[in-house]
Amino acid sequence: MPSLRTALLQSSGRPGSVAGNLTVLDEAAGRAAAAGAGLLVCPEMFLTGYALGDQVPRLAEPADGPGAAAVAEIAVRHGLAVLYGYPEREDGDDGERIYNAAQLIGPDGTRLANYRKTHLFGGFEREWFTPGERPVVQAELAGLRIGIMICYDVEFPENVRSHALAGTDLLLVPTAQMHPFQFVPESVVPVRSFENQLYVAYVNRTGHEGEFEFVGLSCLAAPDGAVRARAGRSEELVLGEVDGELLRASRAANPYLRDREPGLYTSLVRADHS
Amino acid sequence: MPSLRTALLQSSGRPGSVAGNLTVLDEAAGRAAAAGAGLLVCPEMFLTGYALGDQVPRLAEPADGPGAAAVAEIAVRHGLAVLYGYPEREDGDDGERIYNAAQLIGPDGTRLANYRKTHLFGGFEREWFTPGERPVVQAELAGLRIGIMICYDVEFPENVRSHALAGTDLLLVPTAQMHPFQFVPESVVPVRSFENQLYVAYVNRTGHEGEFEFVGLSCLAAPDGAVRARAGRSEELVLGEVDGELLRASRAANPYLRDREPGLYTSLVRADHS
Repeated sequence: MPSLRTALLQSSGRPGSVAGNLTVLDEAAGRAAAAGAGLLVCPEMFLTGYALGDQVPRLAEPADGPGAAAVAEIAVRHGLAVLYGYPEREDGDDGERIYNAAQLIGPDGTRLANYRKTHLFGGFEREWFTPGERPVVQAELAGLRIGIMICYDVEFPENVRSHALAGTDLLLVPTAQMHPFQFVPESVVPVRSFENQLYVAYVNRTGHEGEFEFVGLSCLAAPDGAVRARAGRSEELVLGEVDGELLRASRAANPYLRDREPGLYTSLVRADHS
Repeated sequence: MPSLRTALLQSSGRPGSVAGNLTVLDEAAGRAAAAGAGLLVCPEMFLTGYALGDQVPRLAEPADGPGAAAVAEIAVRHGLAVLYGYPEREDGDDGERIYNAAQLIGPDGTRLANYRKTHLFGGFEREWFTPGERPVVQAELAGLRIGIMICYDVEFPENVRSHALAGTDLLLVPTAQMHPFQFVPESVVPVRSFENQLYVAYVNRTGHEGEFEFVGLSCLAAPDGAVRARAGRSEELVLGEVDGELLRASRAANPYLRDREPGLYTSLVRADHS
């Protein structure tokens, strides 16, 4: 069975400075690779910073923009995959849209998958971003099926269940989780792993930025309910093992997906609730 | 806003003896009422015991059977509502069915709601019981909307979400939770309360019965993520407050139901997953 050492970069980054964040990322990728990691996961909007206010349009770039090229160089230089958050600009026939996005780049520099946050949180995000429309975005890496979502998305059990039903083994969740929502990294994330029988790598910002206080507590949660790696509140690179054999054994012992009764869940997809 | 003091009867009962269990229930109802409780919640299959083996058919009774009448007497005597689990017999045109059921009886002795477990767990239950077909069963009590499910049901996020969408304020979950599944009372139940913004009263058996070791850890979990009452591993009556004002304030601060995107969740109701 496949196994993948995964590094979680809990960092404040250099808000507003793409060059500064790329330097932080490059240094962290070097340490992660030296520790045997095959994947490095960064927080939400790591390329630019989160609390950008009206700087969002200026800092947004396409999925194949210069930030992506710079991250690809870092991935190739250190020989590991990188998942990073950024504001994505898309120029369509009907004008420009900006998404809160996260992109996975492989160790050979290939752009493997790009996800746009579907469940926007709070006034800042709703002002600047268009919600994504694809609930499940996946890629293959090191024999595992990788899924991506962002922050608030993971708090909705429906989203993680959709990934489980689509076969996701390891769900990457860059986040910008704030005080007073410590309950999410401490309790919700491990439960998502257990109830869906997949790994979740939840990677948060830390420190203050504008009006926000980020709470750290990044973690790698396993399908048996145990947390394999957990950061505190400060800047930290933590590593944990995604173990394909544990995944197989845990799924056999906890057959939640097999025991579902989809015919009873129809109220969940009705649009008439508010 | 309404408020309801709720008593959780964590007990081994007297497996196999309906009379013995009614005595335990009567005594607990007296203590609960003296402590100001308006509702007493018992574990799964409390009327008879859980590990009945081939005694299930002999001990099963209709929803308006003699056990229900005896529980109604206890409810009236002490002036509080009682939720109890029992094996329910239904005689249909096509033969007899037995359900793993839980019934809510009001303080005036009225049978307010009867729920049949929809997600059966393990070999014993699947041998003896027919799964229920109604995912959401509710009743009004003390100004609150009460919902009922049983044990394994609560481990599926879809079931609790269905209750939240139907307006349940307080979800009663009699259970027979076994070793090594302590993660469920410790973590899954509080997360269900938080992600759905409702109270959950999770009431377990304890001690050994047949091949099973029940783990206790009954709890009243609140929508803010806090556990308001928590039992240990031994027999215990614990009380907690279901606070309508806290429910209102917590729902305003955590608008999960409003922020859902039902159009993205269609894979959850497809029958082609296994």
